Amino acid sequence: MNLPTSQIPAALATLETPCLLLDQPRLERNIARMNARIDYLDVRLRPHVKTAKCTGIARRIFGGATGPITVSTLREAEYFFADGFDDMLYAVSMAPAKVARAARLVRAGARLRLIVDALDAAEAIAVRAAAEDVRFEVLIEIDADGHRAGLRPHDANVIALARQLQASSHLQFGGVMTHAGSSYGCVGAPALRAHARMERDAVVSAAARLHAAGLECATVSVGSTPSISFAEDLTGVTEARVGVYVFNDLVQSNIGVCLLDDIALSVLATVISHKPDTGRLIIDAGGLALSKDHGTASQAVDYGYGQVCAADGSVLAGLRVVEVNQEHGLVAPADADDAAAMFAALPIGARVRVLPNHACMTAAAYEHYNLLDGDAVLQWPRCNGW
Amino acid sequence: MNLPTSQIPAALATLETPCLLLDQPRLERNIARMNARIDYLDVRLRPHVKTAKCTGIARRIFGGATGPITVSTLREAEYFFADGFDDMLYAVSMAPAKVARAARLVRAGARLRLIVDALDAAEAIAVRAAAEDVRFEVLIEIDADGHRAGLRPHDANVIALARQLQASSHLQFGGVMTHAGSSYGCVGAPALRAHARMERDAVVSAAARLHAAGLECATVSVGSTPSISFAEDLTGVTEARVGVYVFNDLVQSNIGVCLLDDIALSVLATVISHKPDTGRLIIDAGGLALSKDHGTASQAVDYGYGQVCAADGSVLAGLRVVEVNQEHGLVAPADADDAAAMFAALPIGARVRVLPNHACMTAAAYEHYNLLDGDAVLQWPRCNGW
Repeated sequence: MNLPTSQIPAALATLETPCLLLDQPRLERNIARMNARIDYLDVRLRPHVKTAKCTGIARRIFGGATGPITVSTLREAEYFFADGFDDMLYAVSMAPAKVARAARLVRAGARLRLIVDALDAAEAIAVRAAAEDVRFEVLIEIDADGHRAGLRPHDANVIALARQLQASSHLQFGGVMTHAGSSYGCVGAPALRAHARMERDAVVSAAARLHAAGLECATVSVGSTPSISFAEDLTGVTEARVGVYVFNDLVQSNIGVCLLDDIALSVLATVISHKPDTGRLIIDAGGLALSKDHGTASQAVDYGYGQVCAADGSVLAGLRVVEVNQEHGLVAPADADDAAAMFAALPIGARVRVLPNHACMTAAAYEHYNLLDGDAVLQWPRCNGW
Repeated sequence: MNLPTSQIPAALATLETPCLLLDQPRLERNIARMNARIDYLDVRLRPHVKTAKCTGIARRIFGGATGPITVSTLREAEYFFADGFDDMLYAVSMAPAKVARAARLVRAGARLRLIVDALDAAEAIAVRAAAEDVRFEVLIEIDADGHRAGLRPHDANVIALARQLQASSHLQFGGVMTHAGSSYGCVGAPALRAHARMERDAVVSAAARLHAAGLECATVSVGSTPSISFAEDLTGVTEARVGVYVFNDLVQSNIGVCLLDDIALSVLATVISHKPDTGRLIIDAGGLALSKDHGTASQAVDYGYGQVCAADGSVLAGLRVVEVNQEHGLVAPADADDAAAMFAALPIGARVRVLPNHACMTAAAYEHYNLLDGDAVLQWPRCNGW
């Protein structure tokens, strides 16, 4: 193991640890790459803002302007709407009790679309919408892969549900959407291409059945970062939803969606203890700062709770956070013989960056990003909670 | 499976989900039980506030007053000091770069003690303390079980480090402390009693060696909820640090520290989708709302990402959150034949409580507790972040 004695970039020297770093050149590159793919696929981009939860980052995607977005919480919807994002898809099955809160946004001028996958849910939402005297556009969630929610494409309830929405005076059928989340379990281009075809076919076949029944799908929406990164043909699809690509993470790198050098998000941490007897050093980023997501556990490379990099961002090969407690991260080299080199390269007080397994989960522990922009550090807020 | 059709307590009907519930009678019972144990063990109680991060809860421990506490972040220290808690142990190895922030608290009147486990760390901290013109009392961390940080009790550096602290004009040697965190891996009373003895012996033997070298340990500090719950004799120990006992959780119940009925913390969630084809229902509490901590994975009962209870708090046996995505929790019964009963008992819109694997991690996703106190719901804030 050859560990460089890394220099702390001046911009990082004053930050308190643990904190969240966002590498601006990588962020821009990830955004540009996905924008190019979306152009090629000729669909509308509706990025999922649940990853970054930051209006500044969403605006980067749209060249400084606003655009259509996907949200995972009503708090996100309120936060983005306050910054001018007025076209939003709330991509979690709607709970009837949340209609009143959603209605406030619609009354304020937002186009906030909902999703449902059951007749009784749609009925309950319609009752609440009537009580609020608001009309919601609703998409039907299609289950492409048995992964989570939604109706299977050929379930008879797809058409029944669309008809029920059409018949409601306070709901309006807007089309179909799916999220084939099992894409995260695919590895390599052939598997991911096949998965993207499957996702597209599921939702397009549901749309075709609806069309045959006289029900038009204005929106046919698909997406996950892996599937859109590898989709070859989205004929019949109108929009793509992608989230984690803005940051990327170790899970994405393991399945072949990105390289380690494409990961824009990291946690800045400080070395606080050496344990020569156990061959580990301790950093001040533990389970809260990194999250307990161990999504690489069953992948080709198990990164523990994160890949350790030098303060300048260069990957320290083999050095991983192997265990976390609440405020302690235990770092060890893959080869125990490299422990002495690790201690020498990273004395107490040294700073490291840790690449996350799952960017969405890690970022959620923080109130803001530290955006590294040349020698400057800009603080960009996040919108956490519900 | 016999699932009652649960009534939503009136106090919960208006809460937005997901949110954090705190059952006040259980909280009070957990606090009273630990206070009684501490009396029996005849040591000072220095609760670890990293679990609750809430001054109101810490004051409950001290009968409404303040008292000595343990903190895991400087933000906690600042937050609790603002409410009158002026005796604090920062129980994470001190990073030199954090001295300036800690010094502000000391200048404001706090007794904020630090911990170190290395000569070079102590030297770096002394230099910073001198620059701040502040004197810190410092404990030496002892590693009782190879679990995390600290010097082994018989390491020659224990005495060398104490002498170095004594010699410093800006640091003062205050004693020894340990956290034998491997207690979480013990199961049952005999193992936990033996572990508590080991923890005590480690730190008391270090104190005895220091005494023999002419270095007095004013403080000899031990603790974790499992070890203090089962310790039989703490002779030689001056204070006990315990955190998670105020809430308890599924990990603690699996090792025998508490019963399920002692778990005071839960997440209130709403059923948002039924999936008869996969035998799962979906709630609006996912990986962010529950945390990705899967601490029960290798224990006697694997609770997935949480045990599901009815809205009134009664445990729904066998019903667990088996998978989480960011805002989705997938719930399934242990016996697939019980799926129909589950769907019948928990229609879309029904509310459930989810008991957490690890209370400290789950609570960290929320800005406040909803304290259930008879028919009232009180909001108590948390102090998150760093």
